[in-house]
Amino acid sequence: MIDYLSRRQKMYDAMAREGIALLLIEDTEGRRDPALRWFCGHPQDALLYLSVDKRSLLVPWDINMALLYGNADITVPYREFERQPVSAAKGVLEKLRIPPGSKIEIPPVTSYPLFLDYVGALTDYDIICRNTGLHGEIEKLRAVKDEEEIRIYRKAAEITNDVITLLEKNVRSGRIHTEVDAALFIESASRKRGCEGTGFTTLAAGPERSFGIHAFPPYTAAPFAGKGLSILDFGLKYAGYTTDVTLTFARDPTPAQEKLITLTEKAYKLALGLVVDGTGTRDIALAVDYLFSKSRKTMPHALGHGIGLEEHESPAIRSRADNPWVFCPGMVFTLEPGLYDPIHGGCRLENDILLTDSGAEVLTNAAIIRL
Amino acid sequence: MIDYLSRRQKMYDAMAREGIALLLIEDTEGRRDPALRWFCGHPQDALLYLSVDKRSLLVPWDINMALLYGNADITVPYREFERQPVSAAKGVLEKLRIPPGSKIEIPPVTSYPLFLDYVGALTDYDIICRNTGLHGEIEKLRAVKDEEEIRIYRKAAEITNDVITLLEKNVRSGRIHTEVDAALFIESASRKRGCEGTGFTTLAAGPERSFGIHAFPPYTAAPFAGKGLSILDFGLKYAGYTTDVTLTFARDPTPAQEKLITLTEKAYKLALGLVVDGTGTRDIALAVDYLFSKSRKTMPHALGHGIGLEEHESPAIRSRADNPWVFCPGMVFTLEPGLYDPIHGGCRLENDILLTDSGAEVLTNAAIIRL
Repeated sequence: MIDYLSRRQKMYDAMAREGIALLLIEDTEGRRDPALRWFCGHPQDALLYLSVDKRSLLVPWDINMALLYGNADITVPYREFERQPVSAAKGVLEKLRIPPGSKIEIPPVTSYPLFLDYVGALTDYDIICRNTGLHGEIEKLRAVKDEEEIRIYRKAAEITNDVITLLEKNVRSGRIHTEVDAALFIESASRKRGCEGTGFTTLAAGPERSFGIHAFPPYTAAPFAGKGLSILDFGLKYAGYTTDVTLTFARDPTPAQEKLITLTEKAYKLALGLVVDGTGTRDIALAVDYLFSKSRKTMPHALGHGIGLEEHESPAIRSRADNPWVFCPGMVFTLEPGLYDPIHGGCRLENDILLTDSGAEVLTNAAIIRL
Repeated sequence: MIDYLSRRQKMYDAMAREGIALLLIEDTEGRRDPALRWFCGHPQDALLYLSVDKRSLLVPWDINMALLYGNADITVPYREFERQPVSAAKGVLEKLRIPPGSKIEIPPVTSYPLFLDYVGALTDYDIICRNTGLHGEIEKLRAVKDEEEIRIYRKAAEITNDVITLLEKNVRSGRIHTEVDAALFIESASRKRGCEGTGFTTLAAGPERSFGIHAFPPYTAAPFAGKGLSILDFGLKYAGYTTDVTLTFARDPTPAQEKLITLTEKAYKLALGLVVDGTGTRDIALAVDYLFSKSRKTMPHALGHGIGLEEHESPAIRSRADNPWVFCPGMVFTLEPGLYDPIHGGCRLENDILLTDSGAEVLTNAAIIRL
C-alpha cells in the first residue's frame, strides 16, 4: 500500500520551512510530471495543489478516473476552470482561502510566457518558479526509492528477466526474426504478466539500423538479429515504475564488431565496480569516457540515469560538468555504455541497478548475446 | 519531395520582417517540437538554428542520424556543446558571427528558469521568448498543409481505412477479443504497410473501462468488444504525419447506451455540417456543447484538434473563450465528440477531415459499429 499521505506530509513540512503557501504539481500535455501520481495516485492529466495548511486539491481532466485512482482531500474537475492553468490557480486560491501576499510555487518547466500570465493574473500573490526549489526537493525525494517502490522494482525486474529469457529463446529459434516481432512480443508478454505496458517505445534495430543511438523509426518490418549487431532497448512498466534494459544480439561479428562488444562489456564492468555509496555519479561517467577515449572511441550519450515513474529521472549519471549527483542507498538507475559506428553498427548493454546498504545489486539480466 | 528550403525561406522572410537575427527550433526531451523535422527532415533530438542571413545550422544528439536525415547548411554534434542548450546557443552565435545587440528568439516552451539562464549567459544579446512571435508563425504555417503534406495524408488515411476494415472484420470474427489483441493488431498492420508506427499509444478500452476519456492503462489483457461499449482510439504515422481516429464497438446496447450513441452520432453530423471556410472553430464546438446540454450531458474534452507531425496541433477546435482559430482550406483536423458515463461506459466517434476549397472532405472511415 502506497502511503501518499506521508509523501505529502514531507512536502507540507518543506513548504512550511520555505514559506510557500501553495504548491502546484502539474501533469498535462506538454508539462508532464509523474510526481502527480507519486503524491496522489492519479495516473495523469491533472493538476495537484498542496497548501501549507495540509490540504491537497486534485484538478483532473477526467473526473471518473479521479474517483477511481485519485487520493486527495478535495477534487474539482478541470472543466470548472475552463481547462486553463491560470484560471485553475485563481479558483484554487479562492477555494482554499490562501491569503493575498502568499508565495505560490509553480513547476520549473512552466514556460516563460505562461509564467508572465500567472504573474499578470495573480497580482496579489508572489509567484515562484525555480529549478532548485520545492520541485527540486521532490526530485531528490523521488530519486531515493522507499520500501514499497523497491518491492515494486523487484517484481518489475522479475517480469523483465522472464521476458529477456523468452526473447533470447525466440531469437535463437528464429520465431523472432523481424524488429516488429521483437517489439510486439514485448508488448504482449508485458501485459499478459500484469504490466501497464512498456515504459517507453521499444527500440528494435536490426544490423542495418543499430548505428543509431535511438533508432528511427523505433521498430520496422526489417530483419532483426541477422549477421552483425542488433540492439533491443525496452522497459516494462509495472505499477507505474519502468525498467529499462538493452540487449545486443551479435551474430558472426567481424573483428571491428568484436572490438565494440569487448569495449562495451569492459565499460559496463568498470562502471558497475565504481558504484559505491558516496561516489559522485559524474566520476564513474568520466571513468568510462576515459576508457573509451584510450581506444579512440566516444560514447555519444550519458552513461546512465535514474529510473522510476519516468524512464529518465534523477540521479543523472553523466560526465557533464554540472552533474552534482552522488550515489546513495535506495537509488535505482541504469548503466548503459554503448558505441555506435555508421558502418559496423551499434552495441549497447544496459541493466537496472539498485544501490543497497550492502552495495550495488543488479536487478536485471540484460547481456550482449552471441548467437 | 519535401521542399525544406522553401519552408525555411518563409521563416527567413519573417525573421527579416521582425528583426530577429537568430531563431531556435528545439526538439529535445521535455521540449518536443516536430517543427524541427518540418524544417529540415531530421526526425528528433536536435536543435535547429536559422539565421536571418539565410543559413541553417543543425545540432543533433546523433550525428549518424543527421547525416542520413538532416537537411541543413551546417551540422555540429550536440556533444561539442556539452549537450547543453545555453552552451549551444553561445557556440552557434560565435560560429555564425551574429553581431552583439541582435535579437535571438527561443521557443515559447522554454521554461522560466532556462530563460533566465539564457539571459544571464548571453548578456550581449536580446533574448525573445513569446507565444505569438515567430513560433506562432510556424504554428500557423504548419496548420495549413501544403500539397506534399496533403498527398501524405491521403496515403495515411488510405492505410488507416484499410486497418479499420480489418479491425471490424476481426472483431466480428472473434479473432480480436482482448484489448491487447486490438492494439497489437494495429501496431503490426501499420508497420507491414510502411508506416513509421502508431502516432500515439493506442487506447483500447473494453466495456468495463470505456468510461475513461483516456483509458488507463492504455490497453490491457481485458476483454474487448463484449456486451456494452468499447472504445478504440488510434492513429497511424506515415512519413511523419499521424492520423487519429476513434471507433466505438457497441454490443447489445442498453437504452442508456443507445442514447449515448445516438447523441454522439448527432453531434458528429452537426459538427461536420458546420465546417466551412471562414467559420470560427469555437463556434462549432459551442454548437456541440449546446446540443449535449439539451440532453443534460457534458463532453469532458475538446471537440477536435488539428493533426500533422503531432497528434494534437493547430487549429484548436474547442469552446474555450481564448480559441481564435478560423477554418480555412488546407487544414487537416479531427472531430471527436464523445460522452462518458461511469456506469454505462463511453462512446466516441472520431474522424480526420481535410478542408478543401470545395468543402470538408472526410478522409477516414471510423464509425460507431454495432455488433
